[in-house]
Amino acid sequence: MILQTSKSKTLRLPVADPIEASHPLIRDIMTTSPEQLLGALNWRYATKKFNAAATIPTDLWKTLESALVLAPSSFGLQPWKFVVVTDPQVKAQLVPHSWGQSQPADCSHMVVFAVKTGLDQAHVDHFLARQIEVRGGSLEALAGYRGMMLGSLQKATDAGYLDIWQTHQLYIALGQFMTAAALLGVDTCPMEGIAPVEYDRILGLTGSGYKTVVACAAGYRADDDKYASQKKVRFPASEVVKHI
Amino acid sequence: MILQTSKSKTLRLPVADPIEASHPLIRDIMTTSPEQLLGALNWRYATKKFNAAATIPTDLWKTLESALVLAPSSFGLQPWKFVVVTDPQVKAQLVPHSWGQSQPADCSHMVVFAVKTGLDQAHVDHFLARQIEVRGGSLEALAGYRGMMLGSLQKATDAGYLDIWQTHQLYIALGQFMTAAALLGVDTCPMEGIAPVEYDRILGLTGSGYKTVVACAAGYRADDDKYASQKKVRFPASEVVKHI
Repeated sequence: MILQTSKSKTLRLPVADPIEASHPLIRDIMTTSPEQLLGALNWRYATKKFNAAATIPTDLWKTLESALVLAPSSFGLQPWKFVVVTDPQVKAQLVPHSWGQSQPADCSHMVVFAVKTGLDQAHVDHFLARQIEVRGGSLEALAGYRGMMLGSLQKATDAGYLDIWQTHQLYIALGQFMTAAALLGVDTCPMEGIAPVEYDRILGLTGSGYKTVVACAAGYRADDDKYASQKKVRFPASEVVKHI
Repeated sequence: MILQTSKSKTLRLPVADPIEASHPLIRDIMTTSPEQLLGALNWRYATKKFNAAATIPTDLWKTLESALVLAPSSFGLQPWKFVVVTDPQVKAQLVPHSWGQSQPADCSHMVVFAVKTGLDQAHVDHFLARQIEVRGGSLEALAGYRGMMLGSLQKATDAGYLDIWQTHQLYIALGQFMTAAALLGVDTCPMEGIAPVEYDRILGLTGSGYKTVVACAAGYRADDDKYASQKKVRFPASEVVKHI
């Protein structure tokens, strides 16, 4: 396995940099310094060309998978399936359904974010069973909580908003995944320009109750990806942040 | 200012823990170890009760604001406004429009994520002007890129999908924000149970072209928030991750 990274974007940051010694508790609970965090977020870019020979090590991938599993969601209902594609033949099949872009083939791990459609009482009860398994308690004690969740789902269903709402949660997971990857030095490319119906077919999701929403290629940038060295284009904070 | 954190959730992790010495480049570009990352993601929870006396230090807040500004978005178009509310009176006004929950009042910084509706040619041209400002180049050289973006926006408009698509980007920013906050030891509570029209009115967004989508309270958990010590409920990875 060859591992190459664009030198221009390589991070070499100090390990620890507590910011305010006057707030010892802040330092205690801080895992990453502001400089480290911003270094990683600036290092991240939508990778156009992956190094096809570079594979994310197994242990590191497991961490990123945990970042997906731990992603926050509305009521904690986790209305998702994360399909992780490493089979070269399947990855190649995704290319023509991704505007012909090469990332699905060349990346190490191709993650497809699929939403559970028509979230219903069965899902809520499955979630509560899991909650009782993890935390203890009884379904009787959770009746009010259950009713509240079912009421919200019903209201969203009546408004034709249910799947739109749940789809939002997938993007939270996508955001957490890309941020986590950047901190671990793993490159990503979020991909909305994909054909969900074809993805569903190739990944065996058709008729499963899950639908492809968005994808994210993960791996290591090719040394000659010219996009890696381009300056990040962001509107000034004064334009996108309003203080009240 | 008093800063208190629930001891049961306080992180005291090793500073560095490279995982595979056989991959030196991975270690070089890794900002945070897998253990540190997972520690922070497990430490995070949807904070129900904030310590109303604990304020996020200015420098730390600026870092989180940068995490918002640096969030990825489709084509990099940044279809958003982040409204950061610290004025106690305005924060209090948000409570009755947030299912009566206390987080908007008690948190340190209340962030409201607003989407720019009806994203159009003017926005694309504004973005390209910024790109030229940052990277150089000319509008002529970017004509093809411009046409591709405008075509995508038009197609989404025709399908009645434009604002739904752009709204997804706000959730990427929300995901990045919550992950970044956890790494910096800042607590958050994502809030979808809010009245967007009332939020728009209170925040002066009505008629501005921006609409409230979702909010996120940020600050420090109260010592007696019983939710802080509850075990996280997640479906097993084997259930939500499919490997191909």
